[in-house]
Amino acid sequence: MTAINENFMKLRAGYLFPEISRRIRSFKDQNPGAKIISLGIGDVTQPLAPAVIKAMKKAVGDMASVRTFRGYGPEQGYEFLINAIIENDYNARGVDLDKSEVFISDGAKCDTGNMQEIFGIDNIVAVTDPVYPVYVDTNVMAGRTGIADKNGQYEKIVYMPCTAENNFIPDLPDVPVDIIYLCFPNNPTGAAVTKEILAKWVDFARKNRAVILFDAAYEGFITDPDIPHSIYEIDGAREVAIEFRSFSKTAGFTGVRCAFTVVPKQLKAYTKDGRVVEVNPLWNRRHVTKFNGASYISQAGAAAVYTPEGKKQTRQIIDSYMSNAALVRESLTKLGYKVYGGVNAPYLWVKTPDGFGSWDFFDRLLQKANVVVTPGVGFGPAGEGYIRISAFATPKNVKEALQRFASIM
Amino acid sequence: MTAINENFMKLRAGYLFPEISRRIRSFKDQNPGAKIISLGIGDVTQPLAPAVIKAMKKAVGDMASVRTFRGYGPEQGYEFLINAIIENDYNARGVDLDKSEVFISDGAKCDTGNMQEIFGIDNIVAVTDPVYPVYVDTNVMAGRTGIADKNGQYEKIVYMPCTAENNFIPDLPDVPVDIIYLCFPNNPTGAAVTKEILAKWVDFARKNRAVILFDAAYEGFITDPDIPHSIYEIDGAREVAIEFRSFSKTAGFTGVRCAFTVVPKQLKAYTKDGRVVEVNPLWNRRHVTKFNGASYISQAGAAAVYTPEGKKQTRQIIDSYMSNAALVRESLTKLGYKVYGGVNAPYLWVKTPDGFGSWDFFDRLLQKANVVVTPGVGFGPAGEGYIRISAFATPKNVKEALQRFASIM
Repeated sequence: MTAINENFMKLRAGYLFPEISRRIRSFKDQNPGAKIISLGIGDVTQPLAPAVIKAMKKAVGDMASVRTFRGYGPEQGYEFLINAIIENDYNARGVDLDKSEVFISDGAKCDTGNMQEIFGIDNIVAVTDPVYPVYVDTNVMAGRTGIADKNGQYEKIVYMPCTAENNFIPDLPDVPVDIIYLCFPNNPTGAAVTKEILAKWVDFARKNRAVILFDAAYEGFITDPDIPHSIYEIDGAREVAIEFRSFSKTAGFTGVRCAFTVVPKQLKAYTKDGRVVEVNPLWNRRHVTKFNGASYISQAGAAAVYTPEGKKQTRQIIDSYMSNAALVRESLTKLGYKVYGGVNAPYLWVKTPDGFGSWDFFDRLLQKANVVVTPGVGFGPAGEGYIRISAFATPKNVKEALQRFASIM
Repeated sequence: MTAINENFMKLRAGYLFPEISRRIRSFKDQNPGAKIISLGIGDVTQPLAPAVIKAMKKAVGDMASVRTFRGYGPEQGYEFLINAIIENDYNARGVDLDKSEVFISDGAKCDTGNMQEIFGIDNIVAVTDPVYPVYVDTNVMAGRTGIADKNGQYEKIVYMPCTAENNFIPDLPDVPVDIIYLCFPNNPTGAAVTKEILAKWVDFARKNRAVILFDAAYEGFITDPDIPHSIYEIDGAREVAIEFRSFSKTAGFTGVRCAFTVVPKQLKAYTKDGRVVEVNPLWNRRHVTKFNGASYISQAGAAAVYTPEGKKQTRQIIDSYMSNAALVRESLTKLGYKVYGGVNAPYLWVKTPDGFGSWDFFDRLLQKANVVVTPGVGFGPAGEGYIRISAFATPKNVKEALQRFASIM
């Protein structure tokens, strides 16, 4: 008799985005003429850089001839891409990496979701509140948690609240934790972390022999020169941190699928009886066993992001999104809103006015302004009283949405 | 202190292909002038069909304009591809599927490796011997096995020998099993299974409330009209079987990455206390949580496989590989070898002559003929005394390799 993995039954239903869709549908049914603008979705809207298009067309062409055809590539990714990553994303910031420390994949969602598999079930996991749900849900599926409470928070997981009081940077845990998920620049709050603060986390992990799973998917949006782009800019981080990167948001690859993860050779974990084990070979074994390499075409496109034209063109795309972010920040601040984020991240975290709850304010914006945002409470109870605004809409739609914001106050 | 998943320490080193590479390197060092031909690798060599190239170039072009740009697609895949799959691969064979039963992914290796995650740890897993190692290794990582014996077989796994005596079709297990991996047409033996035999397996699974994980990655190579292409051609299979398909071998997508998995709505599994649970929503939850959709470009290419030109062109490619297979079969039979497979599969399973062990015969072929094959014992102890020959080399190389085979006898 086939038994299911009963941990799946602990999962709360994927609530946030289905519920948003439901409310939009219901509104549209009642208001068929309304022109709804979404500032809610975390998906990009601008086309790929011309250099990327050119490289992908060439790569498709390579597949048309027996001489240039590519079958299975290395599961870890092609060297041409790994070398470009190391040189541009790491060496340029004073970080040395070996080729065997970089693993190309088809997405940071997969990598952040899969990484927990190489660690034991009894580890205590710490996440921020609010949080990207994939970190939590994949640990629930694996059996590292108990059941969820009424707020959707699971037993055994250590939640670290991020609030205006701590500038949306969590305090160090005051209980023992083994695996710590951090995402900076942050989704959903848009908070970025300084080297000084990140060094405290690295120090904490070293002292507690914990591992930091550092999600840097939004590093391309950092504008402040003092904000580190990689956790490996912090001394000692190679011994305690795994870093996730993605081309999804920085180069518009949400539909192309390419990302990478860095697992340093120095990173150690432990057996139950205290023996030291290198983590890099464990991840390599998982990667080559359960993954067969990212598409050659996607990898060719990703490599083009690092060419001079590719850098310039993707920079322009990011700048355009960040102009949206600046405009949202400025306009809403003028209207009296308390606005966080949007400086080093494509997300703005906005306090609802007049004590509105996240969902109540979502409804008000939808009804009165026909603007869709994301209720902050959907990312965790500390998000109650906030909304997330994404900067990925077109400039025209952002401007119109902001005019409508003004009209409802 | 971060604990590793100690199940990883039970894994035997990935032995087969690294060891083949080591022996080839060593031979090359001693014989720098030798022209080695590989009939060992299971990777395709022919370029993609022109219809696929055209569709992928158009898809790349779509990503260059804001009007046609595609960001995140549905995690389960685009409807244009799901519809083409259902119509051509299933409806055409009298099998009805709902859209929600088909999950597009980036590879059957990932899907066959990941599927076990939705099932409990205490299930007893049955695999054939010889076997595709991914089925076993992913269950080892998850903790469903004990340690390996000297043959590399793991405690708690039920191995079902496939030998010349049973025509490389395993006998039904005589012990209770819960999850059964079957691959037909088979890698590595090339054996195919009739409807009658497959019906016995479906019947067994129904009686034992077991699940069959049916890997049909090689169905495109079936030439015999009586061999089923899908397990769902068997009555009742929808209640007990998950089917894996891939564009890797049938359309040359090993470097493009696109595959799909069918999880029927009627498929049931159980909680420990005997409650019935539908499996489809469990896999859907896993899929949307740990995967973010296959590349739009790859999906567009896969859909082109189902156009009239795409069908004709991929058929020609497969026919060319199967001509290789027929030639190998005919030539080696003439030379006195006992040859299996190669009729409904791109793999030939060849008995070594004169009682040679798999590795000894591998060495002899490498040394005397400069031909690389895959030692059968690398897929399991029942493969001892066999080699696997793949039909994916170019026709020219296959012909030359066969001449060399003749010269060593």
